[in-house]
Amino acid sequence: MREVAVAGIGQTKIEEQWEKSLRELAGEAALCALEASEFNRVDAVYVGNMMSSSANHQQHLGPYIADWIGMRYAEALRIEAACSSGAAAFRAGVLAVASGDVESALVVGVEKMTDSPGDEITAALATAADADWEVDQGITFVALNALIMRRYMHEYGWEKKDFAPFSVNAHANGSHNPFARFQSPISEADYLKAGMIAEPINLMDASPMGDGAAAILLLPFESSSLKPGLKPVKVVASAAATDTIAAHGRKEATWLKAAELSSKQAYSQAGLSPKDINVFEAHDAFSIMAALSLEACGFAEKGKAPRLALEGEICPTGRIPISTRGGLKARGHPVGATGVYQLVEVIQQLRGEASGTQVENARIGMAQNIGGSGSNLITHILKTA
Amino acid sequence: MREVAVAGIGQTKIEEQWEKSLRELAGEAALCALEASEFNRVDAVYVGNMMSSSANHQQHLGPYIADWIGMRYAEALRIEAACSSGAAAFRAGVLAVASGDVESALVVGVEKMTDSPGDEITAALATAADADWEVDQGITFVALNALIMRRYMHEYGWEKKDFAPFSVNAHANGSHNPFARFQSPISEADYLKAGMIAEPINLMDASPMGDGAAAILLLPFESSSLKPGLKPVKVVASAAATDTIAAHGRKEATWLKAAELSSKQAYSQAGLSPKDINVFEAHDAFSIMAALSLEACGFAEKGKAPRLALEGEICPTGRIPISTRGGLKARGHPVGATGVYQLVEVIQQLRGEASGTQVENARIGMAQNIGGSGSNLITHILKTA
Repeated sequence: MREVAVAGIGQTKIEEQWEKSLRELAGEAALCALEASEFNRVDAVYVGNMMSSSANHQQHLGPYIADWIGMRYAEALRIEAACSSGAAAFRAGVLAVASGDVESALVVGVEKMTDSPGDEITAALATAADADWEVDQGITFVALNALIMRRYMHEYGWEKKDFAPFSVNAHANGSHNPFARFQSPISEADYLKAGMIAEPINLMDASPMGDGAAAILLLPFESSSLKPGLKPVKVVASAAATDTIAAHGRKEATWLKAAELSSKQAYSQAGLSPKDINVFEAHDAFSIMAALSLEACGFAEKGKAPRLALEGEICPTGRIPISTRGGLKARGHPVGATGVYQLVEVIQQLRGEASGTQVENARIGMAQNIGGSGSNLITHILKTA
Repeated sequence: MREVAVAGIGQTKIEEQWEKSLRELAGEAALCALEASEFNRVDAVYVGNMMSSSANHQQHLGPYIADWIGMRYAEALRIEAACSSGAAAFRAGVLAVASGDVESALVVGVEKMTDSPGDEITAALATAADADWEVDQGITFVALNALIMRRYMHEYGWEKKDFAPFSVNAHANGSHNPFARFQSPISEADYLKAGMIAEPINLMDASPMGDGAAAILLLPFESSSLKPGLKPVKVVASAAATDTIAAHGRKEATWLKAAELSSKQAYSQAGLSPKDINVFEAHDAFSIMAALSLEACGFAEKGKAPRLALEGEICPTGRIPISTRGGLKARGHPVGATGVYQLVEVIQQLRGEASGTQVENARIGMAQNIGGSGSNLITHILKTA
């Protein structure tokens, strides 16, 4: 396998982007990534998107976006793995370049969620769960996560307030990110008084949806087209694993088995261990998911992730900084684009471009994207060359 | 790049499968492919599907199907490229195995279309076209193809009856395929008296939808797990190209530029030319598409594909047999599964298992899957080793 490197990145602000169409949103991020790498032609475009079928009445985003950004005739397709669609598209790009078949792969994550009524978006999000065995029983995604969080609190004796640091850290970091949906810090008191959505998950545990796109251009590491002067970042691990689509089917409700598997594979590919990771973009769609990811990936002992957070170790100056540009909680969660945002942010950290929340001497970064309630886990490790 | 070989194939009959759920349908084909290859564990599952989001209120088909077939924890995701989703998923499997990252890839194409009302399916199919610039104008997929067919007849002087051989050949071949939706031969008279859908396309020019799934297990060609005794089939070319998503944006309405590009790439990868191809599974969603594919891939001169068909050269005994197991027209067109069916049929031909329509001495076969009205073209060439 060839080594794969990052040539350029791009992203849009996450917000209600009603004045831009789906293709304009994707185009903005994609053209930014191409411009950054001084590239005007790519072999392939891999689009990560979850819900354009219902939210925008548009599928077939491959040619839809490729032509819009001037890549007519290039290979182009869409990858869907629910909320992990972004990382799945990135992995497709990595494998295509690594195989030698594709010389340049543009990965675009895009989601435009705020044009549609809320009940339609709730229904679209529910397609990531089991239609027969979960959704037909009336459960929503927040409710699924609430069940898991309640069980976790019960098993390990944590209280609601112990989850505050996840949200507080995310919002503090997001306040330095001009692309973040929410750029205001919050206090523990703000967290505790937020309205309840599905007990014990309140508004400050849940990531906001939004419209946004992020893009990354991948080239072979040995390519002479890599722009000189830019700090080179290599993809040193790419691993994916799944679990049952229905949460109730899993052996242990409070353990992300697929996260354990995909992170172990990733560490093994890179010849690294959790202690080598300088920055970790975790999938904090809900506070509980950030906690479970930290444990499954070996950054905290089982049942002890809130302790890590309470001790400040998830902050940019801590032992394992997460959500360094706001995470899903504050940067926002345009579902199919999120995985690409996470990777863009890891790259910013490795290049030393994470103004305001730069992790000192960040050389190795990891991003983990979760699809469904823990049914699809995709882990990447990137490293400065 | 490692060479990639076929280890096993499976398919379901295409019909109204109301008694089976989406996962049962996919599972039937997938388990058949695994059983055929005596495999009970795979690294990755790539699902080709277009419209489960709307037709089945279920996305995230990766873990949904992987777990169902006993592949819990394996990597699993869905690829969407409209009606070319099946070949796109196959190509993802080929690249993953070729890269060396994945040792075994199960490709599953599945679509369950007949549970939903016709207007919902028409709307779902329309998401393959440009929502803003085609669909909002009220055009359907049949109408788009009708415009192209009418223009083609006008430019090259063909009459309606000249297209009869495409449909007659497909139905004759389908009558030998136990998995085909339609297994009755038709005559030229039947073709001519069929009801008009969107002039000049009548019912016998248009492929039927249906519920169905097909699956292929891919391994490295050098793998010791390839079942001995089975005729080995290698993937010698895999190429994809796109064009504008909106038909009106293309330079020439009656020329599939992306088919030309992806077939040329495929020939070049395999070191072959059109005259080397013994069997060609073309994407005959409409008669006109079969004609345009034959021309763009170099099997007929521009504007002359109907001549090839009228002379019997597309029949199993002709120069370039197409739709040898019924094609989209008679075997059926469960959209996201179709590309995998085409490949399964090419493999059957190369193995000498195409009972009733076996092409003599078939050693090299090609399959071409079309997404949208010609906006996504994926070409594979397979060869007996």
